[in-house]
Amino acid sequence: MQKLLVVKIGGNIIDNAAALDSFLTSLAAIEGNKILVHGGGKLATDLSAKLNIPTQMVDGRRITDAETVKVVTMTYAGWVNKTIVAQLQAKGCIALGLSGADAKLIPAVKRPVKDVDYGWVGDIGSKNVNATFLKTMLISGITPIVAPISCDNEGHLLNINADTVARTLAEAMRADYEVTLAYCFEKNGLLMDINDDDSVIGEIDLANVERLKASGVINQGMVPKIDNALGAIANGVHTVVIGHANNIKHIAKHEAGFGTCIK
Amino acid sequence: MQKLLVVKIGGNIIDNAAALDSFLTSLAAIEGNKILVHGGGKLATDLSAKLNIPTQMVDGRRITDAETVKVVTMTYAGWVNKTIVAQLQAKGCIALGLSGADAKLIPAVKRPVKDVDYGWVGDIGSKNVNATFLKTMLISGITPIVAPISCDNEGHLLNINADTVARTLAEAMRADYEVTLAYCFEKNGLLMDINDDDSVIGEIDLANVERLKASGVINQGMVPKIDNALGAIANGVHTVVIGHANNIKHIAKHEAGFGTCIK
Repeated sequence: MQKLLVVKIGGNIIDNAAALDSFLTSLAAIEGNKILVHGGGKLATDLSAKLNIPTQMVDGRRITDAETVKVVTMTYAGWVNKTIVAQLQAKGCIALGLSGADAKLIPAVKRPVKDVDYGWVGDIGSKNVNATFLKTMLISGITPIVAPISCDNEGHLLNINADTVARTLAEAMRADYEVTLAYCFEKNGLLMDINDDDSVIGEIDLANVERLKASGVINQGMVPKIDNALGAIANGVHTVVIGHANNIKHIAKHEAGFGTCIK
Repeated sequence: MQKLLVVKIGGNIIDNAAALDSFLTSLAAIEGNKILVHGGGKLATDLSAKLNIPTQMVDGRRITDAETVKVVTMTYAGWVNKTIVAQLQAKGCIALGLSGADAKLIPAVKRPVKDVDYGWVGDIGSKNVNATFLKTMLISGITPIVAPISCDNEGHLLNINADTVARTLAEAMRADYEVTLAYCFEKNGLLMDINDDDSVIGEIDLANVERLKASGVINQGMVPKIDNALGAIANGVHTVVIGHANNIKHIAKHEAGFGTCIK
């Protein structure tokens, strides 16, 4: 079975031109099948502020009204996506920018209103992913770059969570590939002590994750990422690692000592 | 030889939600191979104004500084492109949003500074188009939706002219398809009297175009479009029509009485 690397990069890498350039240089040099998923939340917040559109977050999720879905579509699917595509081409990697709306890649449904009305926010599932399209691209030597925007059946654009996009794509591809899912950000992994970059927890599993949540080692911001990681493993993704974007080439090779491995 | 319809829609259709919806409904109903190229200049100008970025135009072309290339990328490749993609999916047309940067679709070079420094503006040519990629998409039943943004070999995003994109794609595909290129806008065609919507000139050719330019029938705004149309015919595109977006289904079938045909 062929291997596939699905990487998600977080906002603190995207915001920093030098960090992004360094990451993309490493990514371009990794041979074989790969898919990159990106966010861009801080840039969207900046653009909203310039346009006097208030930013409202609930549990780290953006309330997405009609003006905000325009801002996130412009930022994620426009500026961030095409900036990454252009830079990867220059580094010799043939990149194809996509949103979940394109070629029905990741059909979404508008999130039902329960305690919170998130607005134009979408929920997605791996069964609906257009895996055939992604496979065709990978076979052609093309690297898909996916922005966390999709649409529903009525043509409404929806804001979707980038961590969930990465997990959903990894799960959708696991029938055809041995998939490694890498959540890359500006820390070395899940840290036992948030102030000590060397306190990386080498691996976590379902048995100890509840304890780590209860003790606050897995803090509020990390909960959705860890839950997505555990879900991916439960659904047949081969390897999930949370680690530093600088270490992507080591993470891709499953080298010990780089990041937190989810079992 | 299979047929291919390459359509370019202008800004006044994109700005008007009802006109855009009506056009996309017609486009989705047209069977066979099709590619849509869009602009979005007025929306980019609006966003620039909201962000206090001055808009400078020379001969109808936008001077594109570092802030402006961000605005046009967000507007064209982000908001306009994904809005069209989402709406086409809802109408049963499987659409794939692309910029010229994606999959090296339309490699560009930064325009050399001569009398005017256009900034981050790119020039393109049909020989460099990734026609193989477009053909693969068309064979898969996918309709490419192309935003007029590309990049150079150094990873710089560049603003490219949408009329030229449509012509360049039409020329690049003519080896494999009998191509109809349709420039669609809010008028019925090239009008002998700009105030009379019924004064459509049925056809023009190289022999009379200079006279029409000299007499002002082909005014400044129309010159690049007409020149692209004539160039496309000279380079082997089967049919070029300039007409109303409302009439796209008739134009696609080459029905007489709809638009101005370039010979």
